[in-house]
Amino acid sequence: MSAGFRFEVVREDPSGARLGRIETLHGSFETPAFMPVATLGSVKGLTPRQLEEVGAEIVLANAYHLVQRPGVETVQALGGLHALMGWRGPILTDSGGYQLMSLADLVRVEDEGVHYRSHVDGRAGLLRPEDAVTVQEALGVDIAMSLDECVPSGTPRERIARAVDRTGAWAARGLAARTRPETALFGIVQGGLDVGLRTESAAGVTALDFDGYAVGGLSVGEPPADTARVAAVTVARLPRARPRYLMGVGTPRDLLRFVAMGYDMFDCVLPTRNARNGMLFTRDGKLVIRNARYARDPRPVEEGCVCYTCGLFSRGALRHLVLAREMLGAALATLHNLHFYLRLMREFRAALREGTFPSRGALACGAWA
Amino acid sequence: MSAGFRFEVVREDPSGARLGRIETLHGSFETPAFMPVATLGSVKGLTPRQLEEVGAEIVLANAYHLVQRPGVETVQALGGLHALMGWRGPILTDSGGYQLMSLADLVRVEDEGVHYRSHVDGRAGLLRPEDAVTVQEALGVDIAMSLDECVPSGTPRERIARAVDRTGAWAARGLAARTRPETALFGIVQGGLDVGLRTESAAGVTALDFDGYAVGGLSVGEPPADTARVAAVTVARLPRARPRYLMGVGTPRDLLRFVAMGYDMFDCVLPTRNARNGMLFTRDGKLVIRNARYARDPRPVEEGCVCYTCGLFSRGALRHLVLAREMLGAALATLHNLHFYLRLMREFRAALREGTFPSRGALACGAWA
Repeated sequence: MSAGFRFEVVREDPSGARLGRIETLHGSFETPAFMPVATLGSVKGLTPRQLEEVGAEIVLANAYHLVQRPGVETVQALGGLHALMGWRGPILTDSGGYQLMSLADLVRVEDEGVHYRSHVDGRAGLLRPEDAVTVQEALGVDIAMSLDECVPSGTPRERIARAVDRTGAWAARGLAARTRPETALFGIVQGGLDVGLRTESAAGVTALDFDGYAVGGLSVGEPPADTARVAAVTVARLPRARPRYLMGVGTPRDLLRFVAMGYDMFDCVLPTRNARNGMLFTRDGKLVIRNARYARDPRPVEEGCVCYTCGLFSRGALRHLVLAREMLGAALATLHNLHFYLRLMREFRAALREGTFPSRGALACGAWA
Repeated sequence: MSAGFRFEVVREDPSGARLGRIETLHGSFETPAFMPVATLGSVKGLTPRQLEEVGAEIVLANAYHLVQRPGVETVQALGGLHALMGWRGPILTDSGGYQLMSLADLVRVEDEGVHYRSHVDGRAGLLRPEDAVTVQEALGVDIAMSLDECVPSGTPRERIARAVDRTGAWAARGLAARTRPETALFGIVQGGLDVGLRTESAAGVTALDFDGYAVGGLSVGEPPADTARVAAVTVARLPRARPRYLMGVGTPRDLLRFVAMGYDMFDCVLPTRNARNGMLFTRDGKLVIRNARYARDPRPVEEGCVCYTCGLFSRGALRHLVLAREMLGAALATLHNLHFYLRLMREFRAALREGTFPSRGALACGAWA
């Protein structure tokens, strides 16, 4: 276990859900937790203060993106990623394996690591599992992720099996490369939609002493029933005493479902990316603010919502700002959506605390349940 | 005079500058005042709360733009422009004559008004001086501007003279069209760089009982010496008991100079537009944040600055956000620049209050003086 990192299960719910608590050197937070996505070091359009005010307690950045720009040495010269972001709370970085394999050109994955050309400047690079750990340690983050190999959905079983082997070998190499005890390191389970391979991957990765365990390669376009099936099989193979992180998930309904399965941590671009496209989350479902019916609607995005956006702006006003492509429109929509997501997580945790989880959790999801 | 609008000269400085105070139904503010530009109803990237925090006391929006979108009836249905913007302080709107003549297609100016095709949807429109007043009254703003005819610099004297006549006639027609006593109305002096025409325009417009008087058509590309010469001649023709507004001005040096001449109100896109291009205002002059020298500079944009941006972000961090085109970079730069401008105005007013204006004012401008 890393120094300064501590996970405690506060309460186990009969549903399988857990109320937990994670301590880091940059503060503690309760789980289940949702991490807003700050790929390049900012949650697009929001100041750190706004992030705090919507209830964010931990944010997620992306090591691959930060290596491309501004570069690790620059981040270090500026005092580390917390200083760069102006964020004093915990930060988790994804190693960026997924982004690298989807964004970079001429990617060639070998046992040694990932050879690639940068999507920003075309420079050739090699990311080894050891580098992934070194880079994230250098960024000064609280939680780092192992480098894993992600394969597209529809990949043949044999090829997935090789990625599982490689991900396991990389996990061990990354763990062995640690030098900074303040940085917690999570291992990642892969295996596509193959239950056997997921089981094998979980066995391999959990045999290594990581601070937490993540499930990657889900929610990448497969049918929701497959996601749920594989997530359920996998979570049963993860140790109860460590945090379980389901990467890239999801909708409010997904969060309810996977919290009930016993997952503790989540991240997703849905609330932030959709906000920038004018899609708002409300208890009554999605609200597409560009719709003409909202042009003169004086009600807030969600009635009863206490976020800054809903306190000050009507649907009509927000629609105007979004249609006129004013930056403020995207920022206000992002603020509301994150408030919605983080309120949902607070409701889940309150329900877990008082033993009313599935029902109160579903109630909080509203039309999304 | 309109109901609820009141201007008082608190102190006249030997320099010619005045410390004043304007009351409106949405609050009062001191002059000299700088109005951040919120063309479409938002200062790009900033929430109303951030605007308040940088010290904005009155903001400027643009009636022509708001007529194009979201439309006056929509603004009314949403509770007026203050509600649309989420801004509780005073609002001044420009009639948009200048924007109309520079943005719209197929503009044809006649005595009746301005025939145009919208730059947004191509629809034909006619803006008469009466309409300009009616529209701004309907928006519910605190200070409306008369419709004026702006001519490009380099226009022959005869053509400028016709614009002066038309602007005077339109001023009278707009004044006669008032129906909402809560909306103050300012007249506008035109006349290009011709001192005789400026004098004539000022005589005509000040013969009408406006709540304040503006000088338009300056700072549109002419040499600074010409701006100063014409501004000086014109200000001497404006009544001392009414606020004097120099439209579209300017740099910190311009503000110092024109405050000293006796102008009370200013607006300019420089601090906000330049921020979005990565140009920061500091006491030491301009700072181009994209410059490579700032990549690892851990200092704030301006040392000693107490704005949110300088309190939390290094030059290197801001450079990264701007280069990565993160919305937050533009917002943080805007926040700092407006803080710089509004601090400057506070310094000017403090200097006028204590009788140290030109020297303390110049000091506040730093390298810009």
